[in-house]
Amino acid sequence: MKPLLALAVLLAAPLAHAAEGMWTLDRLPLERMKSELGFEPDAAWVDRAMKASVRLAGGCSGSFVSPDGLVLTNNHCIVDCLTGLSTAQKDFLNGGFLAAQRSQELQCPAVELNRLEQIEDVTARVNAATQGLSGRAFNEARNAEKARIESECGSDKTVRCDVVELYDGGLYHRYRYTRYQDVRLVFAPEYDIGFFGGDPDNFNFPRWNLDMALLRAYEKGQPAKVRDWFRFSSEGVKEGDATFVTGHPGSTQRLLTVAQLERRRDIDLLHALSSYSERRGWLYQYSKLGTEQARQAQQDLTFTENSLKVISGQLNALLDPRLIAAKREAEAALQSGASPEQKAAWSEIEAAQRAYRRLWKPYRAIEERGGFYSRHFEIARHLVRAAEERGKPNGERLREYQDAALPQLTQRLFSAAPIHVEFEKAKLEWSLTKLREWLGPDDPFVKLVLGKESPAQLAARLIEGTRLAEVATRKALYEGGLEAIAASQDPFIRLARAVDGPARAVREQYESEVEAAEKKAAEVISRLRFAKLGTSTYPDATFTLRLSYGVVKGWEENGRPIAPFTDFTGLYSRQTGAAPFRLTPPWLERKAQLTLNTPFNFVSTNDIIGGNSGSPVINRKGEVVGLAFDGNLHSLGGAYWNDPLLNRMVAVDSRGMIEALRSIYGAKALVQELQPPR
Amino acid sequence: MKPLLALAVLLAAPLAHAAEGMWTLDRLPLERMKSELGFEPDAAWVDRAMKASVRLAGGCSGSFVSPDGLVLTNNHCIVDCLTGLSTAQKDFLNGGFLAAQRSQELQCPAVELNRLEQIEDVTARVNAATQGLSGRAFNEARNAEKARIESECGSDKTVRCDVVELYDGGLYHRYRYTRYQDVRLVFAPEYDIGFFGGDPDNFNFPRWNLDMALLRAYEKGQPAKVRDWFRFSSEGVKEGDATFVTGHPGSTQRLLTVAQLERRRDIDLLHALSSYSERRGWLYQYSKLGTEQARQAQQDLTFTENSLKVISGQLNALLDPRLIAAKREAEAALQSGASPEQKAAWSEIEAAQRAYRRLWKPYRAIEERGGFYSRHFEIARHLVRAAEERGKPNGERLREYQDAALPQLTQRLFSAAPIHVEFEKAKLEWSLTKLREWLGPDDPFVKLVLGKESPAQLAARLIEGTRLAEVATRKALYEGGLEAIAASQDPFIRLARAVDGPARAVREQYESEVEAAEKKAAEVISRLRFAKLGTSTYPDATFTLRLSYGVVKGWEENGRPIAPFTDFTGLYSRQTGAAPFRLTPPWLERKAQLTLNTPFNFVSTNDIIGGNSGSPVINRKGEVVGLAFDGNLHSLGGAYWNDPLLNRMVAVDSRGMIEALRSIYGAKALVQELQPPR
Repeated sequence: MKPLLALAVLLAAPLAHAAEGMWTLDRLPLERMKSELGFEPDAAWVDRAMKASVRLAGGCSGSFVSPDGLVLTNNHCIVDCLTGLSTAQKDFLNGGFLAAQRSQELQCPAVELNRLEQIEDVTARVNAATQGLSGRAFNEARNAEKARIESECGSDKTVRCDVVELYDGGLYHRYRYTRYQDVRLVFAPEYDIGFFGGDPDNFNFPRWNLDMALLRAYEKGQPAKVRDWFRFSSEGVKEGDATFVTGHPGSTQRLLTVAQLERRRDIDLLHALSSYSERRGWLYQYSKLGTEQARQAQQDLTFTENSLKVISGQLNALLDPRLIAAKREAEAALQSGASPEQKAAWSEIEAAQRAYRRLWKPYRAIEERGGFYSRHFEIARHLVRAAEERGKPNGERLREYQDAALPQLTQRLFSAAPIHVEFEKAKLEWSLTKLREWLGPDDPFVKLVLGKESPAQLAARLIEGTRLAEVATRKALYEGGLEAIAASQDPFIRLARAVDGPARAVREQYESEVEAAEKKAAEVISRLRFAKLGTSTYPDATFTLRLSYGVVKGWEENGRPIAPFTDFTGLYSRQTGAAPFRLTPPWLERKAQLTLNTPFNFVSTNDIIGGNSGSPVINRKGEVVGLAFDGNLHSLGGAYWNDPLLNRMVAVDSRGMIEALRSIYGAKALVQELQPPR
Repeated sequence: MKPLLALAVLLAAPLAHAAEGMWTLDRLPLERMKSELGFEPDAAWVDRAMKASVRLAGGCSGSFVSPDGLVLTNNHCIVDCLTGLSTAQKDFLNGGFLAAQRSQELQCPAVELNRLEQIEDVTARVNAATQGLSGRAFNEARNAEKARIESECGSDKTVRCDVVELYDGGLYHRYRYTRYQDVRLVFAPEYDIGFFGGDPDNFNFPRWNLDMALLRAYEKGQPAKVRDWFRFSSEGVKEGDATFVTGHPGSTQRLLTVAQLERRRDIDLLHALSSYSERRGWLYQYSKLGTEQARQAQQDLTFTENSLKVISGQLNALLDPRLIAAKREAEAALQSGASPEQKAAWSEIEAAQRAYRRLWKPYRAIEERGGFYSRHFEIARHLVRAAEERGKPNGERLREYQDAALPQLTQRLFSAAPIHVEFEKAKLEWSLTKLREWLGPDDPFVKLVLGKESPAQLAARLIEGTRLAEVATRKALYEGGLEAIAASQDPFIRLARAVDGPARAVREQYESEVEAAEKKAAEVISRLRFAKLGTSTYPDATFTLRLSYGVVKGWEENGRPIAPFTDFTGLYSRQTGAAPFRLTPPWLERKAQLTLNTPFNFVSTNDIIGGNSGSPVINRKGEVVGLAFDGNLHSLGGAYWNDPLLNRMVAVDSRGMIEALRSIYGAKALVQELQPPR
C-alpha cells in the first residue's frame, strides 16, 4: 500500500461492527472499545499515542520509537528519500542503508514530519464566514477563513496548522503540528526484502516483507529529543490479541452519495484503470533499456503498479451490486423525514456530477497536470504560480501557496534529488500524447501546446532547452518573483506561463461548479446525519491522525483458512533466486544466524487505508508490536465500506524486525535503542 | 475499425428503426426497404450483390471490382500481408505498393478469400442431433453434426462450408463458399495516408483516410475470372442518397440477456481495458527502440489501440443506464406469458455467468493463450494439437482441427511471414508476467510453466532454443504427426505439450458449464422470440454476409452539425508534417494535380461493425460509391444496440479513390479496370 493512494464505512449504521472505524483522537468510541475489547484507554494513553505518532507529509505515517527522535516507518514510504540520495553508483533503494553511527545518518532531500499537538474546533467560525454563500463566493470565503485560522498559528516554521474538514464539512477542526524538515536516513533494507514478492504479492497474504525503515528527526542539527515514543515490545502479539493503530489514513469515500460513487466508478476509476495500465506498460518496457534506466523508473513503476491494484479493488467494490444496494438503502433511510430543502442536497450533488462529466477531462489533464507528466513541468508550474500568488494577501491565494503550505512546497521545489533527463523526456512525450488523446487533436488547448510539433518534438525541445534541473536556477526564479518569471526564456517556464490562464480557468469552473456545490450539499447531509445518528460515527479519512482498534485474526478465502502469522521459514521456502522472489546475499549468507520460526508478518482486523502505511501497531501497554504496511485484496473496497469478515491489515511483526536488525544487519545499537533497558 | 474486433440491436423491437439491421441475404426486409427507400431489390440484384462480395477469412470484408478478380478492401485489412512481405529493407506497410503490371503482383503469405455461393437451412438436422442433451453431451453432438454437414461439401479445397448459428442457435444454416488462397497484392497506399490521423482520428469524423487496398484473386496461377463484380460509380453519392453495404460484420451482442451483458461489462471489458492499455504502453515504448523495432511492433500497436477504442466505447454503452433499462424492459416483455420452463432459460444463463466468473481467468490465460503472447507458442500449440486431433474422426475433433478448418489453419501455420525474434522475446516475457499476475504466483499452472525461472529467463530460454521460426521445421513436425511431436526437443513444443492437458481441461469445463449452458438456454429464448416477433428481426452478427441499408447523412454532436462529406482540401489543411498528421512526398509533390474539392470520406446511417471493414458501399445500381472502413465513436455501442441518431458508418468515397489512384499514384491501368468503358 502506497501513500496518498488512498484507498475508506458505509453511511455508518447506528452501530458499526467491531474493528470498523478510523476514529479521531478527540472522539474515541471508548464505550464500544470497553465492551468489545475490555479495554478503555485513559487520557494519558491517548495523549501519548497522539504525540508518539507522526505523519510523513508526503503521504505516510510513522512513529517515534526512541527518545532520540528515531522514527519507524515503511521502507516504501521513504522511496523518495532513497532515490533522491542515490546515483547510478550508489543505489540505496536497492542496496539498502545502515548508518553505522549517528554522524553517518544522511539527510533526506525532501521529507517533512508532523507531530500532532492539539485539536481545536473551528466549525462555527468557518460556518459564519460562508453563511448564505454559494459557488465561487462560498469557496473564496471558506478559503479565506481557513487561511486566517491557519495563519493565527504564527510564522514559526516549526509549527504547522491545518484546518481539516471532517464529515464532509460537518465539522472544521484546526490541527496544530510540530514540523520537522531535517529528517535523516538511519536504516533501510534492500528492496528485494523490503518488497519481497513485488507486485505479485502486493495486497496479498501470506506475506514476507521487511517493509520497514528508520529515520531520525533532527532539530537545530541535533537528534530531536522527544518525550513521547513507543518502545518495541519484547513479547509481540498472538492470535486474538487487541491491536491499536495510530496513523494517517489518506482518504475514504464512505460518506459519498450514490451519485458520487457512480461517477467515481464510471469516470474516475475507469479512466484511471486505463491510464495507469498504459503507464505501467511503458514504464515496464522503459525499464528494459538497462539497469540505470530501470533504477530511474523504479519508483514510478512501483507506484503505478500499486495504484492499479487499488483502482481495480475499488472498481470491483463499486461493481458489487450489494454495495450500491446498501448505499441506496442507507441513503433512503437518511432521506426519510428530511425536509424538501434537505432533500434538495442530493439533487445538487447530482447536478455537480453532471458538471463534473463536462469538466473532468480538461481539469485532470491541464490543472492537475495529467497531460504533463514531468518533474520539470511541476517545477515550472509552481514557480510561475508562486510568483503570482505570493503577491496576493494570504487569504486570497490558491491554497497550495498560502503561508501554511509554503514550507512543504519550497522543500520539494528546492530538493536536490536528481532529475533524470532522458526519463523526463520519455515521460513528457508519452503524457503529451495522452493530452492530445483526452482532449482531442482539434482542442484549442492541445493546439496551443503542440502547435505543429509532435509530442516527441515538443518534449525534446523543452528538455533540451531547460535549466530547471539546477536547484540554483529554481531558487533564482522563485526569489526573483514575477519579474524574473516574465523575463525567463526557459522553455518550461514559457510553457507554464502560456498554459496558466486556461489551467486557472478550468480550476475556477471545477471548484465553483463541482467542489463548492458538493461541499455545500454535503454539509446539509452531514447535519442531517448528526441529527439522526449523533456522533456515534466517524468521519471519512482526511490524512489526519486516527485510531483504529482490532484484533490479530486470519480469515477464510474460498473456504480455506488463512493463518494470521508468517515466519522466516516461509520466506526461505518462497524464494526462487529471481526477482521479485529473490533474497540478497546477507539474507542467504546469514540464514543460519536467524531464528527461523520468528514471526515475520501478521494480519489483523484493523480498519486502515493508504496513508496508514508506516503506522505503528501497538498493544494495550502502548508498545510497538507491529508496523502496518499493507492490506489484503479485500481491504481495497475499504474506500467505500468495511467488510469485517474479509478486510485485513498486513503488518511486519516487531519480533521479525528486531530479529532481522540483529541477525542479518548486525545493527546492535539500533536494537538497543528500540528496546532500551527499562 | 479493425477486423474481428468487432464491435452489435436491442432485443429487436417489433419494428426496428430505419437503417438498423444486419440482414442475411436470404431474409431481406424487402417491404421495409420499399417503404423507407422506395427501392426493393430484385432477386438478380441480391444474387449479384452476394457473389460480388467477398470475405477475408482473417476478419474483414471486400468485393470483386473487376471481371479479372480484382478485390477492393481496406488498407488496414491487409496489414498482415503487407508486414509479411516486408523486411527492414523494403517496407510495404509504410511505403505502400503498386504493381506496375500483373506480373509484379505479390502473393500474400496468408490471405484467404471466401465468396458465398449458397445458403441452406440445416436447423432440423442439428436440433435432431442434440435433442434432449445438455452440457458436454450437447456440445459433442452439436459439434459432430455440424462437422458432418460441413464435410458433406466434399474435400475440394476450393469449396468451404461453414455451419453458421443464427439467432443464438435459433437457426443453423450451411454457408457454402468458393475459397481463394492465392491472393496477390496489387495496390496499397502508404500508411501515413491509409491511416491519416492515426489513433487520435480513429473512430472519429470528419476524416481523411485513403483506407483502401486492391488485391487480386488467382486461380491456378491466373487472375480469377468472375461473373459478378461491382463497377466503380462515376457519379458517387450525395447527402440523402440510399447506400447499401454488403459485408461480414464480425460479432454483435444485441440479443444477449442482461446477466450476460453485465458479465461482459464487469469482467471481460474491464479486464480487456486494463490488459490492452498495458500492452499499448509497452508496445509504444518498445517502438521507441528504433525504426526497425517500431516497424516490427506497428501492427500489434495499431491493433491494440484500435481495440482499446472499441473496448471503451462498449464499456461506455454498458454503463449507460438507459441501455440496461431498455434491455431489462425488453427482457420482461419477452418473459411475459412465457412458461416456467421457458423462463428457466434465464436462470440457466445466470448460472452459466457464475461458472464463467470461476473459469474465465484460466480459460483466457491458458486455453486462449492470453498468458502466451507469442507467435511461436501459437505455432507450437497448433502443431501439438493438430498431431493429436488429426488422428481422430472428423466429428470428434476440436472444431479448429476439423477438415473444413484445416486449409485456413495450415495456410497460417506455414506462412512464410517473418517472425522477429527479439520482439517475440519481449512479447512472451511480458505476457508471462501477466499469466503470473492473473492466476497468482502460487497457482499450480503458473508453477508448472515458470518453475524457479523468472518470465525473462523462461522467455529467453524458449526463444533461443527454438527452431519453429523456420517454415520447414513446422512442416516436418506437422507431417510427422504424433511421433514427431513426442520426439521433439524444441522448447516451445515441449512447453505446448506440457500445458496441453490443463489447457484442454479448462476448455472442457468452459465449454460444458458456460458455452453449452448458454447455447441451450439461448435456443429456448430464441424460439420464444420467433413466436412473439416472427422473422421481422435480424440475427446477431456472425461474420457471415449481411446487407445493411442506410442513407448518406451527418449527425449532430453537442448541438453542432457534422457535415457528411470531407474533401482533399481538408486533408491538406489538417496535415502538420508530424505523424500521424503527415503526408508522404507524392501527396506533397502532386497536390497541384489533385482536384481538391473531390469528396474524400463520407458518413452514412448504415449499421455496421468490425468485420465489415472493407465492405463495398453500393448504390441502387449496384455500383461502388464507397468503401466502409470505420464507424464514428457512437457506433461502438453498436455491439449492444443501434442508436439511429448518432451511429454512423465512415467510408472512403469512390471519387476520392479514383482521384488518388489517377493523380497521386498514376495508376491508369487500375483506374481503367475499375471504370471500364461500358
